[in-house]
Amino acid sequence: MKSKSFGMMLVALFTSAAFAGDESVNSDAKKTIQKVLDDQVNSWNKGDLEGFMQGYWQSPDLSFFSGGNKTAGWQATLERYRKKYQGEGKEMGKLVFRDLSIELLGADHALVKGRWQLTLKNETVGGLFTLIFRKMKDGWRIVHDHTSS
Amino acid sequence: MKSKSFGMMLVALFTSAAFAGDESVNSDAKKTIQKVLDDQVNSWNKGDLEGFMQGYWQSPDLSFFSGGNKTAGWQATLERYRKKYQGEGKEMGKLVFRDLSIELLGADHALVKGRWQLTLKNETVGGLFTLIFRKMKDGWRIVHDHTSS
Repeated sequence: MKSKSFGMMLVALFTSAAFAGDESVNSDAKKTIQKVLDDQVNSWNKGDLEGFMQGYWQSPDLSFFSGGNKTAGWQATLERYRKKYQGEGKEMGKLVFRDLSIELLGADHALVKGRWQLTLKNETVGGLFTLIFRKMKDGWRIVHDHTSS
Repeated sequence: MKSKSFGMMLVALFTSAAFAGDESVNSDAKKTIQKVLDDQVNSWNKGDLEGFMQGYWQSPDLSFFSGGNKTAGWQATLERYRKKYQGEGKEMGKLVFRDLSIELLGADHALVKGRWQLTLKNETVGGLFTLIFRKMKDGWRIVHDHTSS
């Protein structure tokens, strides 16, 4: 009986070590994704749209849904932001993300849900977003963004 | 040299068999997800909201974003649909999904993007959706829906 208990203890030890390993990998991934989002907000609030865009997959396959409009590709997404927030008489305002939820989908993808709020001179606008992140060689990047208000 | 060629041929054979295996699993998963979506549309167009709701994860953790509004849980999502499409003077209309893209994220999740269009008596409405599917014991189900117009 003693050796059985010892064996079971070993199994329990290895199992919890394996779980702890997974959890620590997950927790690291979530922290990395949180940092991508924090960096985006910081860049936005400095008026640095190119910095903000670093969070997105720099690919023609990036997809961006806003309301009823689709934008395809990193470059077109940057241009959409430029037109909407840096055009004549436009402003970038102060961006905040709230109610963030970061959920890993397997080892290489994550689902991020949250609220965005943009404080402009004369109004505050906001809404919801859904982001899909993929783990790339150079870090986690948004491959799909769905935003609505 | 002959045995080397034979060895390489074997490697090539096994490799392509392994890839074919992956592809066939992926293709099966995509077909299953496509069927969930087809069943949803068919149910909707028969006025069967409970049938439509079978595509969703029957859990308080289902999340549903529409425009700027969050709905949490399967039951609340059903009630939202009931109020919006089966209430006094409301109609379900004819639903169509278009421009569907189904992308597997690892073995147990999928990202589905598309357009929805609803033809009502006096108007046609529509927009975009992003769905996250998860593979459950009883099949693939939507765990997060973001819809906008």
